[in-house]
Amino acid sequence: MSVVYYTASSLDGFVVDGDDSLGWLLSRDIDGAAPFGYDVFRPTVGAVVVGATTLRWVLREEGGSWPFTLPTWVFTHDDGMQVEGGDVRVVSGDVTQHHAAVVESAGDLDVWLMGGGDLARQYADARLLDEVAVQYAPCTLGSGAPVLPTRSEWELVDHGRNGDFLCARWRVVRGSGDS
Amino acid sequence: MSVVYYTASSLDGFVVDGDDSLGWLLSRDIDGAAPFGYDVFRPTVGAVVVGATTLRWVLREEGGSWPFTLPTWVFTHDDGMQVEGGDVRVVSGDVTQHHAAVVESAGDLDVWLMGGGDLARQYADARLLDEVAVQYAPCTLGSGAPVLPTRSEWELVDHGRNGDFLCARWRVVRGSGDS
Repeated sequence: MSVVYYTASSLDGFVVDGDDSLGWLLSRDIDGAAPFGYDVFRPTVGAVVVGATTLRWVLREEGGSWPFTLPTWVFTHDDGMQVEGGDVRVVSGDVTQHHAAVVESAGDLDVWLMGGGDLARQYADARLLDEVAVQYAPCTLGSGAPVLPTRSEWELVDHGRNGDFLCARWRVVRGSGDS
Repeated sequence: MSVVYYTASSLDGFVVDGDDSLGWLLSRDIDGAAPFGYDVFRPTVGAVVVGATTLRWVLREEGGSWPFTLPTWVFTHDDGMQVEGGDVRVVSGDVTQHHAAVVESAGDLDVWLMGGGDLARQYADARLLDEVAVQYAPCTLGSGAPVLPTRSEWELVDHGRNGDFLCARWRVVRGSGDS
C-alpha cells in the first residue's frame, strides 16, 4: 500500500494559480487511458484523502455533489462541514492519527492524496507520503499554491509524455533514521 | 537563433533554495555527455546572458574568475561591477534594448540564458525567450527563487531522463498578437 500524491501542476510547480482557478489546467489535452492518465491511475486506488479547499473546488465543478464513490477522507478545520454524495468522512487534526483508518478503508489498494499542496506537505513531513505523480502542464503560473511546500527527497521511477503534459512518478527516499 | 533558458530546478520549480545555496543540486548525478547534458548543450550556444546574482554565485564557485570564454552579458543594477576573466560585458536596463547586440555576439548559435529566474522572467515578458530546458532534480525545496516567475505558455518538444534528473525542453507558444 502506498500513499500517492497524484496531481497536475504547472511546469514551475504550482497547483492553483493566484486567482484560485484551474483554467490554466482544464484547457489542456490529456488521454485518460494512456500511461499516467486518470483512467489508468483510478483502479489502483481504494481511498481518497483531500483537503477542504480542493474538496470545495471539486464540489463547485461537480454541481455540489462529491463524485467519487471511494471512501473519502476530508481534512478540515471546519468541524461542521457537510458533504453530499459519496462516502465522505470529515476529519481534523494530525494526519498521523487517522492514518491506520485511512489505509484500512483502501483495502489492498493505494491511497490517493488528491491535494492540495498543504495536505501533501503534512503527509510528507509525517513521512506518510510514498509517491508523487505529477503531470506538468506546458505553462508557467509564476505564483499560486505550490505543489509540495516542504523539503523532501525522491527518486524518479517513471516518466513520459501524455498529450500536452510531461508526466513523472517519484518514489520517496527516506533517510536511515526514518521509518 | 534561439534564446534558451537552460537550467536545473527542484521538481517543485525552485532554482535556488531559501538559503541561497545549490547544495541540493550539486549532490546529484548527471551525465554531461548524455542527452540534455551540459556537454551536449554547450556547443549549441554562442553567448551567455546572466543576472548578477547568478554570476556572483558562479564566481564564488570558480574562485573569483569567470570560467566561460563565450561573450557573456551580465544584467545588473551595479554600474561599477568588474568581472575578471572571459569576455564579460556589464549592462543594465531593459533586456530588449541589448537584444540585437546579444544576438550578434552569438554568431549563428543560440543564446544561453543562464539565470536566474528574474532575468528569465524579463526575457519571457519581453517575448524574447524561445525555449525553456529544465533538468528537474529529484527533490522539493518548498521555497526559494522560482524558476520562471511569470505566466507563459509552452509546448513540450523533448523529454527524457539523465542520471537522477527528469529533463524537458519546452518551446514557446506565442499568441497571434505576438511577434
